Amino acid sequence: MSSSRYVLGIDFGTLSGRAVLVRVSDGAEIASAVSEYSHGVIDERLPDSNVLLDVDWALQDPDDYLRILEQTIPAVLAQSGVTADEVIGLGIDFTACTMLPTKRDGTPLCRLPEWRANPHAWVKLWKHHAAQPEADRINDVAREMGESWLPRYGGKISSEWFFSKALQILDEAPDVYAAADRLIEAADWVVWQLTGVETRNACTAGYKAIWSKRDGFPSHAYFRALDPRFERVVDEKMSRVILPIGSRAGGLTPEMARRTGLKPGTPVAVANVDAHVAVPACTVTRPGSLVSIMGTSTCDMLLSDKEAMIEGMCGYTEDGIVPGYLGYEAGQSCVGDGFAWFVENGVTPRYVDEAKAQGVSVHQVLESYAARLKPGESGLLALDWWNGNRSILVDADLSAVMVGITLSTTVPEMYRAWLEATAFGRRVIIESFMRGGLQVNEIIACGGLPEKNKLLMQIYADVTGLPIKVSASAQSSALGSAMWGAVAAGAAAGGYDTIQEAAARMAHLKDEMFIPNLENKAIYDILYAEYVRLHDYFGRDEESTMKRLKRLKLQVA
Amino acid sequence: MSSSRYVLGIDFGTLSGRAVLVRVSDGAEIASAVSEYSHGVIDERLPDSNVLLDVDWALQDPDDYLRILEQTIPAVLAQSGVTADEVIGLGIDFTACTMLPTKRDGTPLCRLPEWRANPHAWVKLWKHHAAQPEADRINDVAREMGESWLPRYGGKISSEWFFSKALQILDEAPDVYAAADRLIEAADWVVWQLTGVETRNACTAGYKAIWSKRDGFPSHAYFRALDPRFERVVDEKMSRVILPIGSRAGGLTPEMARRTGLKPGTPVAVANVDAHVAVPACTVTRPGSLVSIMGTSTCDMLLSDKEAMIEGMCGYTEDGIVPGYLGYEAGQSCVGDGFAWFVENGVTPRYVDEAKAQGVSVHQVLESYAARLKPGESGLLALDWWNGNRSILVDADLSAVMVGITLSTTVPEMYRAWLEATAFGRRVIIESFMRGGLQVNEIIACGGLPEKNKLLMQIYADVTGLPIKVSASAQSSALGSAMWGAVAAGAAAGGYDTIQEAAARMAHLKDEMFIPNLENKAIYDILYAEYVRLHDYFGRDEESTMKRLKRLKLQVA
Repeated sequence: MSSSRYVLGIDFGTLSGRAVLVRVSDGAEIASAVSEYSHGVIDERLPDSNVLLDVDWALQDPDDYLRILEQTIPAVLAQSGVTADEVIGLGIDFTACTMLPTKRDGTPLCRLPEWRANPHAWVKLWKHHAAQPEADRINDVAREMGESWLPRYGGKISSEWFFSKALQILDEAPDVYAAADRLIEAADWVVWQLTGVETRNACTAGYKAIWSKRDGFPSHAYFRALDPRFERVVDEKMSRVILPIGSRAGGLTPEMARRTGLKPGTPVAVANVDAHVAVPACTVTRPGSLVSIMGTSTCDMLLSDKEAMIEGMCGYTEDGIVPGYLGYEAGQSCVGDGFAWFVENGVTPRYVDEAKAQGVSVHQVLESYAARLKPGESGLLALDWWNGNRSILVDADLSAVMVGITLSTTVPEMYRAWLEATAFGRRVIIESFMRGGLQVNEIIACGGLPEKNKLLMQIYADVTGLPIKVSASAQSSALGSAMWGAVAAGAAAGGYDTIQEAAARMAHLKDEMFIPNLENKAIYDILYAEYVRLHDYFGRDEESTMKRLKRLKLQVA
Repeated sequence: MSSSRYVLGIDFGTLSGRAVLVRVSDGAEIASAVSEYSHGVIDERLPDSNVLLDVDWALQDPDDYLRILEQTIPAVLAQSGVTADEVIGLGIDFTACTMLPTKRDGTPLCRLPEWRANPHAWVKLWKHHAAQPEADRINDVAREMGESWLPRYGGKISSEWFFSKALQILDEAPDVYAAADRLIEAADWVVWQLTGVETRNACTAGYKAIWSKRDGFPSHAYFRALDPRFERVVDEKMSRVILPIGSRAGGLTPEMARRTGLKPGTPVAVANVDAHVAVPACTVTRPGSLVSIMGTSTCDMLLSDKEAMIEGMCGYTEDGIVPGYLGYEAGQSCVGDGFAWFVENGVTPRYVDEAKAQGVSVHQVLESYAARLKPGESGLLALDWWNGNRSILVDADLSAVMVGITLSTTVPEMYRAWLEATAFGRRVIIESFMRGGLQVNEIIACGGLPEKNKLLMQIYADVTGLPIKVSASAQSSALGSAMWGAVAAGAAAGGYDTIQEAAARMAHLKDEMFIPNLENKAIYDILYAEYVRLHDYFGRDEESTMKRLKRLKLQVA
């Protein structure tokens, strides 16, 4: 193995972190290791102080991230027998927006005894949803002031994003806000810890912190309108230096080299977003192919060389996914999670027992029954909004619906209707892209679902009318991070100079492909028209039954 | 027991017949016996000939009815030690419209070898649904000709009713139609067999055969417009002599006395409808109290002294339930059946196992969890149309819906939402009565559900805002038939001269009563408004998603 060169990709997920060691020449995944965060998602009480958290809070401990590095990197080196000398670069990707307050030297506030019992001193995880009032204010003020960046985010900034979370700290814990020298993405903070150099990556800044290469951040006037103390948030708490993706943030510090077993000075790429690094890992470096990461939720990414206003996008940025292109991002907030909900809350003993007897999962049993049904045969139609609708309605208050239930409706029929609902939701996103003038010729899928549920993939092909190809890697994000690590190293050091070159060598698709069945497509066209009617009826009316039910629920709770 | 007098009530259900022996003086139910029909519901193939039936067909064997008499009457006499001398009268009630073709002497055509292999020679059970094209024609022609009786049936004649079924025989088996000297309700046919006298009861004729005391049957011109051969259907195949309920049809024939163990000449009341005889058995003989038979489906009956046009009624007739009043009938086509569907198709092992461990039904486990929820707390709202909607939309093509599902939705929440949906459906019926100017001050419930599900009764009280009382009898229809038997006997023979007198002595309510909780009522008022919106959105639009899904289902099947 002495002639080979390797790169490391580290993928920081919601509950765990994963390191994958990849061969530069062909993308072969040589070794991988996963480790769970000691504190997981902190959503009930703070560690040590036991301070109780409100509903909708979701925090993490930044030191858990460092423990991932210490545990997984030595593990993959040991597994593979690869030496530190052979590792020429390292890239990381992260959930976003996941952010924290730190001191000027990078020390997280929550590590300091005086702040440890204050929830606002900890990492706010992407799914921390308690900043909705701040998000509402950000949107209201932006609309009033006619801010030009608002349409870039589909007309709505999410409570999950950077300034919503930052403003919540100011609103609820001005002392924490004052004590913080930095408000920073956890992704950038980890790279800072690795290299000793504070950087901010263009990808997260663009998608989550209202930054663009051309216009920078929103104006002082806008931030002042949110709160006078917030006027200079960018200058006081952040940094206007934003590095493009693929850049080298710095070299590994001696201290981190010691803790990970790598060589001091090993090139580290600027941080990136987990979904986005999957795009080149799926072989995609140009327009026309929609990359879909399908798991508990779905994230869709599309490259384009033209700027378009597209309804319901989570956002887009120039150079945000692949340099030279605008990167558009959309998503379905609940896909695999919804199927899991159904398996937990809608499946009768008959099917559970059958799965046990056959030694397969309940999903597999349901899939085999559901696969025998024809489209339209059950008379069922569902809206897949168990966890609201991300794209294209951007509305967390929406909920799921099933129409067409009769006394002869069966469990596999309902299962199939839920699968189909997510396919229709997917087609709404694709049609929104196409209405905006962007091309979608095929879907490249990665994530857990394409492996697990072939029926689902075939339904997606039949409903969208697009062929679906599947990434050969089961860990696309980690592979993508490793590819960016190879770019940060550069060709001269045995890596690559561009992500296109890295993708051409390191990324692969499976031979298997899902081709639309045109007979099914014709029936699904009819069902899709009804899906769109229900989608608009329940989703586009602020006074819809769905909205009123949610309000009543909050009121009686 | 020599001083006591008794009456017999025989209730002919869908799958079985039940005899109850009742003491005249106080309504005490001394003995009862149930027996299943040998051929049950014939919906796949004819007995003997094995001729296959189409979907939507539902037939019965009339000789099964006679076997019920032979089995259950001797059984209750033996059980109780009551002698034939002490039985002063007999009444029967039946499902409706359940009808058959016979020869002039009452011999069912299906008993004759030459017709036995023809499905149209058998009894068409109430739930035979294959006469929809004929029902459509009956309605279309009636609308075109401006028939004055149409509004009396809520503007729509059902495929289940008499002339739809009769016309189907003519359409599909003109030879059977020609060979039939009589087309007759099974209820009237059984009384004919008991007494040797052909009678027709006003109740079934009024509710199911477009007859009214004032106007009689539709005109020859109308029947001619349906089909020239149908012009004289009433004169050729029926009888214009319609006896009011409570009349004595005749005395038991020696032959039937021998077969049942009763005395020849025992007074037999004219036949009646199962739901209607329950009204006096629930103590109700005047306006203001809605009698609801709650079981697999729900039937609602209300008396009034005024004539009103009420949307979605199954019909009304003068003297049809209690002499001297107009009797209105409405219903929900699926209630207990819907809950049973959910238990079979929506309940996870956890609850099924818990029921097993506790030795109770799954319903009881779900009820105990659902009872802990507050109205509105789940955020769920459902439409209870698993089997279409009888009142007030009269539309078999509608289906059930659930809105508001999230990742935290639980099985007991869904169970409660289904219970609530039927309560809202119930309120729609009550409000339709009230819009028509009829009073509803309380609900008197009978049937299986009030016994089995207290939570359901409380929800009904909370949603409707009406107190709910429950019949003391678990077999209200058989008790009601026995009461009518006592009226047929008359006071001179130890019975009663009027149903009011019989009700005052023989019918009783439980002490338990369900009183509306006004706090819950206030929340349910909000939910009910949303139910009505969904009800109208899905139910009143011929091009609603629900209708289109049903059409597509038929198309792809």
